[in-house]
Amino acid sequence: MDLKQYIADVKDFPEKGIIFRDISPLMADGEAYRYATNEIAKYAKDKGVEMIVGPEARGFIVGCPVAYELGIGFAPARKKGKLPRETVEVSYGLEYGSDVLQIHKDAIKPGQKVMVCDDLLATGGTIAATIQLIEKLGGIVVGTAFLIELTDLNGRAQIEGYDIFTLMDY
Amino acid sequence: MDLKQYIADVKDFPEKGIIFRDISPLMADGEAYRYATNEIAKYAKDKGVEMIVGPEARGFIVGCPVAYELGIGFAPARKKGKLPRETVEVSYGLEYGSDVLQIHKDAIKPGQKVMVCDDLLATGGTIAATIQLIEKLGGIVVGTAFLIELTDLNGRAQIEGYDIFTLMDY
Repeated sequence: MDLKQYIADVKDFPEKGIIFRDISPLMADGEAYRYATNEIAKYAKDKGVEMIVGPEARGFIVGCPVAYELGIGFAPARKKGKLPRETVEVSYGLEYGSDVLQIHKDAIKPGQKVMVCDDLLATGGTIAATIQLIEKLGGIVVGTAFLIELTDLNGRAQIEGYDIFTLMDY
Repeated sequence: MDLKQYIADVKDFPEKGIIFRDISPLMADGEAYRYATNEIAKYAKDKGVEMIVGPEARGFIVGCPVAYELGIGFAPARKKGKLPRETVEVSYGLEYGSDVLQIHKDAIKPGQKVMVCDDLLATGGTIAATIQLIEKLGGIVVGTAFLIELTDLNGRAQIEGYDIFTLMDY
């Protein structure tokens, strides 16, 4: 299935000069969404994944149906202040300033095999932070999966040594 | 399955005097997450649902695996500025001030049967706004589904006339 036909290219969003790759037409199409989810689930099964973590909010859209398909759990990584119970946190650099990502302290069991899911591998900052959170809790990141990789931004360099699965490249 | 054993009661979050019902232990348990998703999917199937809409961000966690199970699409309702393409919007009252919720203009086809999913039916403000967005696009809201209903807050009054399915009451 040619998934790229379900990606909307939006010029100058969120700022001038950027082409935003919008996954919403893919999610809105039951067949395309199901296909993409199944491909990621197959990868996760091969890796023996026991738990999925996705950063908010599009990471939920990608990761949650994969967790469901595999009958395993999902844990959200969220911006500071959104999770109600005890968390661990990591701060990570953005283009201007920095941000903090948190995960519940009991989200991952030590030794658990975890996959990180998101819509996009761009600069890799959010994903690297999510991996750090999982490892702080003793989880083992056995794979990462994305709908789209923006190869020019070289996010792979940020998560070197981790296995990466992507469905589309730009 | 007694789903309440997977809900964490968090006192004084987000502010003093409130008991927050945290669904994250439910999502973290593959079996419980799968059971809850299947129950909502059965309800949606009975209603002939063709598309699911969930408000960010926990609505994604509840609605996306249901969409996957049924092989139908999912459209996010998001806070202002998050969706990259042309949107319609609704502003709705919060305890202090107001907020704006948006949906992509092409997210729903006129006449499409839509279900709204979220983790919680509380005061019903977000859900009423989400319903308004769907109806602005000509969609028909044939059902709403929630993991939890906080009955004291009487959210049902806000969405009177719409069908409601909930898995747990507090």
